Amino acid sequence: MRMYDIIAKKRDGGELNKQEIDWFISEYTADNIPDYQASALCMAIFFNGMSENETALLTAAMRDSGDKVDLSCFDGKTADKHSTGGVGDKTTLIVAPVVASLGGYVAKMSGRGLGHTGGTVDKLESIKGFKTTLSSDEFLNQVENIGIAVIGQSGNLAPADKKLYALRDVTATVNSIPLIASSIMSKKLAAGTDNIVLDVKVGSGAFMKNLDDAKDLAQAMVDIGYNCGKKVSALITNMDVPLGYAIGNALEVKEAAEVLKGNLNSDLAKVCIALASNIISLVKGIDINQSELQVKKALCDGLAYNKFLEWITAQGGDVSVFDDLENFVKAEYNVEVLSEVDGYITKMDAEKLGIVSVMLGGGRATKDDEIDFKAGLVLAHKTGDLVKKGEKIATLYSNTVKDMSKAVALFNQAIVVGEQKPLDAPLVYEVVTKDV
Amino acid sequence: MRMYDIIAKKRDGGELNKQEIDWFISEYTADNIPDYQASALCMAIFFNGMSENETALLTAAMRDSGDKVDLSCFDGKTADKHSTGGVGDKTTLIVAPVVASLGGYVAKMSGRGLGHTGGTVDKLESIKGFKTTLSSDEFLNQVENIGIAVIGQSGNLAPADKKLYALRDVTATVNSIPLIASSIMSKKLAAGTDNIVLDVKVGSGAFMKNLDDAKDLAQAMVDIGYNCGKKVSALITNMDVPLGYAIGNALEVKEAAEVLKGNLNSDLAKVCIALASNIISLVKGIDINQSELQVKKALCDGLAYNKFLEWITAQGGDVSVFDDLENFVKAEYNVEVLSEVDGYITKMDAEKLGIVSVMLGGGRATKDDEIDFKAGLVLAHKTGDLVKKGEKIATLYSNTVKDMSKAVALFNQAIVVGEQKPLDAPLVYEVVTKDV
Repeated sequence: MRMYDIIAKKRDGGELNKQEIDWFISEYTADNIPDYQASALCMAIFFNGMSENETALLTAAMRDSGDKVDLSCFDGKTADKHSTGGVGDKTTLIVAPVVASLGGYVAKMSGRGLGHTGGTVDKLESIKGFKTTLSSDEFLNQVENIGIAVIGQSGNLAPADKKLYALRDVTATVNSIPLIASSIMSKKLAAGTDNIVLDVKVGSGAFMKNLDDAKDLAQAMVDIGYNCGKKVSALITNMDVPLGYAIGNALEVKEAAEVLKGNLNSDLAKVCIALASNIISLVKGIDINQSELQVKKALCDGLAYNKFLEWITAQGGDVSVFDDLENFVKAEYNVEVLSEVDGYITKMDAEKLGIVSVMLGGGRATKDDEIDFKAGLVLAHKTGDLVKKGEKIATLYSNTVKDMSKAVALFNQAIVVGEQKPLDAPLVYEVVTKDV
Repeated sequence: MRMYDIIAKKRDGGELNKQEIDWFISEYTADNIPDYQASALCMAIFFNGMSENETALLTAAMRDSGDKVDLSCFDGKTADKHSTGGVGDKTTLIVAPVVASLGGYVAKMSGRGLGHTGGTVDKLESIKGFKTTLSSDEFLNQVENIGIAVIGQSGNLAPADKKLYALRDVTATVNSIPLIASSIMSKKLAAGTDNIVLDVKVGSGAFMKNLDDAKDLAQAMVDIGYNCGKKVSALITNMDVPLGYAIGNALEVKEAAEVLKGNLNSDLAKVCIALASNIISLVKGIDINQSELQVKKALCDGLAYNKFLEWITAQGGDVSVFDDLENFVKAEYNVEVLSEVDGYITKMDAEKLGIVSVMLGGGRATKDDEIDFKAGLVLAHKTGDLVKKGEKIATLYSNTVKDMSKAVALFNQAIVVGEQKPLDAPLVYEVVTKDV
């Protein structure tokens, strides 16, 4: 087999077969195919796409390129959610214990934040004592005992994807639906979970800027899941505004804890209920309405919150912080941002607000930056709200940035106040499932 | 400037500007841009093309990446022809002395053969004593004194093209009109000639297999020439059959000499007259009909043949070989191929016939192969001819291959004899000039 022929076939609109895709991935991972041929292939895929079957084959080949987590002992009841990345997205902190409290097994590896989006592992580390590294045995035992464990990426999962993604990142070939879908799903599939609900974010703060692309990506990932023997569905959710009101690590943990304590009126709670209901529906094979009832009940009667505390304790976290949440988030410096005019908030640029949090110390601009867990911001109002001149729109927090004027300036750029009340945008646009 | 942005711009259908193209070529030539980014850009160009202006800018940047030959002392009267490569193409041996005999200055660097197409330098070396390497001074002095010199590629012309072509060759990005056109023209422009006639071959034995592609390539190259300040036109010529009857080095020199001696009825002579007339028309700024008269006269009255002998002598060649051409081409072994049926020759696969010549020792399969100058074949008939069973179609020659059965078998695969006389195909499809 020659890489040249594979590139030429894809360039001319052909469909690659299993033998060709397996060979490409194994030889590329083994450094036997040069980057300049792989990047030419990625650009040809950018233009000519991949069929559903090709995309599944590519994903399976990348999944099989490294370690795989074996969760078969959990009898098909393992569950996971995966978000394509947004601002203020603390859903894992809520959805995971809800699912575990209802009999799902959540054996999750999660990422760190980079750029304008935060990472679950960073958020958890804002809780004193919480360990995000467990041995493989500790990890699986905890899942068996209490139904939930969340750790940072470990092991050598889907190294082919890691290598290929790094190449795509510098050759302008990231933006291809089959390549994005196979990249995400190869890691998810290597992590071994049986039931997966994907949270595909769309809007100004998300990687996907328009709904059609988001739907295509969601469908591609759902199709991959089924073609690789997993149950998968996807929610397309709004990321034109941040999810919830808090952006920043401890601030988001506090907001998540409030939902877990039964405060279910926020947009955050609604999205979490939708995600958890879809997961439970897959895990238990029950109707979505029935599953939603169970989820709401778990949140209202404290089952989910107790599971949350059990989980945090199991991983060494000090749960006494949840007794005094105001103290948990207290930062040395804070500044209130006030509205300069009367009017409706017509736009909040979620990506810019994410960057405001990074500027305050709450995120990483580069991989090696240290995080100030207390830094971030809490919105007092969101898109659609009426504000008066001088009324508080948000509070910014930091332990390290005393002069917040630059952050305030960027915050003000992110907010548009106008005369017309904007149309309500849905929180969840659509649920994408496999056409069977 | 970032290579990423240049790739993304071309990927999204944008037009690269001079600054971007110059930067890419100079940094790539200096090894500051990795091959994996350059190949992604080439694949994006494959899909999105390049405008006339972009193509000219790319060509100029590659032309300027290395040495340039200065022919300004010849007062705008330098002339060259360039063929995109065919089988049995000995036109340079005829056209160059014709042009020189009519006052043009031919300062030509030519290539060696590889694969199924032969090279002018190899053909010239079949003449005992002929030197294809001259110093820069010797080269220019000879052009000044007798109007013609032809040597092998020397110096470091268009190194950017050399590097980029090698990359395109292994990344399935050769087949792009702007990239092919800029590659050819960057070397031609660096070689300094003012008036260039391109011979774009189309058909089974050529790189361009269909007429539309050949026209696009011809127009792209003519446009580049004018945008870079040169006079250029292009002839689209037939390469469905070999040009002339001889394939092989000495055999082709013999056939060329016969045309130079005034045998003007062959397809070879007609194509050479067309090429030379177009060159003289550019050099002298005269009408093509007037120029054609001059060319035919030069061939009929011996002016061109005398110039040919003067040229061969100047480069050390023994012109006594032309007194006994039969002896010049005499090879140790020969085999006649006879027709197995009655009928019309409906097809001759020029590429396969080129490979037959290589199998007999007349060409190179790899760069380091030695050539048997006497090896090759001479057709007795060509497409359209009526042949009887047992009648000779060709003679195969070799000094090294005694058992020619494999070569004969391939020869027979290359020839189709049928009942219907095929339609005549034109020798010259079209002359492409710049729309001004």
